[in-house]
Amino acid sequence: MISRSAKITVVGLGVLGGSYIKGFYQAGYTVYGVDVDPQAVAYAEKMHWIKEGSTDASLVQDSDIVISALYPHVFESWIKENQHYFKPGTLLTDVTGIKREIISRINADLRNDVEFIACHPMAGREYRGIQYADCNLFTKANFIIVPTDQNTEAAKTTARDIAEILKFNRISELTPDQHDSMIGFLSQLTHIIAVSLMNVSDNTHLVDYTGDSFRDLTRIARINEDLWPELFELNKDNLVREIDAFINEMQNFCDLIQNDDVEEMKRLLRQSTERRACFDRK
Amino acid sequence: MISRSAKITVVGLGVLGGSYIKGFYQAGYTVYGVDVDPQAVAYAEKMHWIKEGSTDASLVQDSDIVISALYPHVFESWIKENQHYFKPGTLLTDVTGIKREIISRINADLRNDVEFIACHPMAGREYRGIQYADCNLFTKANFIIVPTDQNTEAAKTTARDIAEILKFNRISELTPDQHDSMIGFLSQLTHIIAVSLMNVSDNTHLVDYTGDSFRDLTRIARINEDLWPELFELNKDNLVREIDAFINEMQNFCDLIQNDDVEEMKRLLRQSTERRACFDRK
Repeated sequence: MISRSAKITVVGLGVLGGSYIKGFYQAGYTVYGVDVDPQAVAYAEKMHWIKEGSTDASLVQDSDIVISALYPHVFESWIKENQHYFKPGTLLTDVTGIKREIISRINADLRNDVEFIACHPMAGREYRGIQYADCNLFTKANFIIVPTDQNTEAAKTTARDIAEILKFNRISELTPDQHDSMIGFLSQLTHIIAVSLMNVSDNTHLVDYTGDSFRDLTRIARINEDLWPELFELNKDNLVREIDAFINEMQNFCDLIQNDDVEEMKRLLRQSTERRACFDRK
Repeated sequence: MISRSAKITVVGLGVLGGSYIKGFYQAGYTVYGVDVDPQAVAYAEKMHWIKEGSTDASLVQDSDIVISALYPHVFESWIKENQHYFKPGTLLTDVTGIKREIISRINADLRNDVEFIACHPMAGREYRGIQYADCNLFTKANFIIVPTDQNTEAAKTTARDIAEILKFNRISELTPDQHDSMIGFLSQLTHIIAVSLMNVSDNTHLVDYTGDSFRDLTRIARINEDLWPELFELNKDNLVREIDAFINEMQNFCDLIQNDDVEEMKRLLRQSTERRACFDRK
């Protein structure tokens, strides 16, 4: 397990970075926090979640572990500008929601004496900012480690330790390809469905007739507009393929309705019912 | 309010009809139940939800109020075959999920001395059968009365009384056109989205990576395959229009991703976030 004397620094104190420092603090670890926003730093200090915070990247000096909770393009430029502060042997990890591109871009820039191990904590909220930090998010979430053949066993162990300290429900390993394919379907396609359902027409006048089905389907239509377009762009091939397949499936069902093909509709409803049963919480 | 000495008979003791008789029973009303399945009748009797049950439609004789909780096409044929049992002045109502077609078909067949007032309790479960009856469903659900100019004020009042006795959260009136348009978007389109998402590929191997977003989005993919194709067919014009519009919206978003149009994506995500905020529970 990670030594309690290790210096851990979280860079980016938004809702997810904030939940990380809160979780480390509650587990008895000493963490440091960097953010461009002095109010986020002040909030983290006021809550005692960090020992010290700064808007200045030089705070990462001497860190054993640096965790980026930055947006993908910010992460990339931040590393270029600030990796000279890292001590040799620092382990760098992240929270980015797509993996192939971020791994290749960060590793292309990164010093040879610093190791990057990519991680994706599959947890988030519909609200932004450190004031919404909540490490209870993690207790029912997946933590996915996405190693490459350049990663050491020690780095994988540390990534797993982070997930255990933060009390993630399930820890697994995927390749970058597996990860981005899975996330394209389970997360990105579903967010675009919810967004499209809200945008297709202004149906806010229907609010009084809205039941749980519609609310459940559109909860994730409340979305961070600065983050997600980046994630979509960085997984374009998978996502476009998933959207195309989904549109074809919807069009097929529409054709069945138009052709009064009740038997084929029944077959598809039976299939969806059977498959959905596999996703019931155990 | 409906007199406690009124004879109320519910025809069709599935999950919804079962919840109706349970709700009436708990409110102190004496109800009767008819179902083709002797086990459903026996269950209702064992639970004391009905004073008397039968597989024979003649039980509706002398009823002041008859409530059909049958599938649409069964409702239609049941009325043709059994309306001769009704006493003059019986009020007939229903629970059907689409309204234009059912109103015109039932009224085309119905005796002149019986009045039909169409109602749609917007409540349901992903499970079928009287053993899943649960009148707590109603306390957060909408009850929609769908009168025509043939309906009397007395019938509308009785429909409202039924909703109040069953403790529906909100009671409203819509025209048949308004109702079917609303339901095509809020309910039918959303079910087809959930079904299509489950059917687009067999992703049950992803169950370990699935978070709340995907589960929320697909909860309603568990669907009664005998009922819903009927409801889709009976609202075909509205539903096909809604599916087409939704597919266009998805295709538009896909084009933005392919064209790297981040600014327009951001605008759409902001719009969906703002609209979704209107649907938060007060």
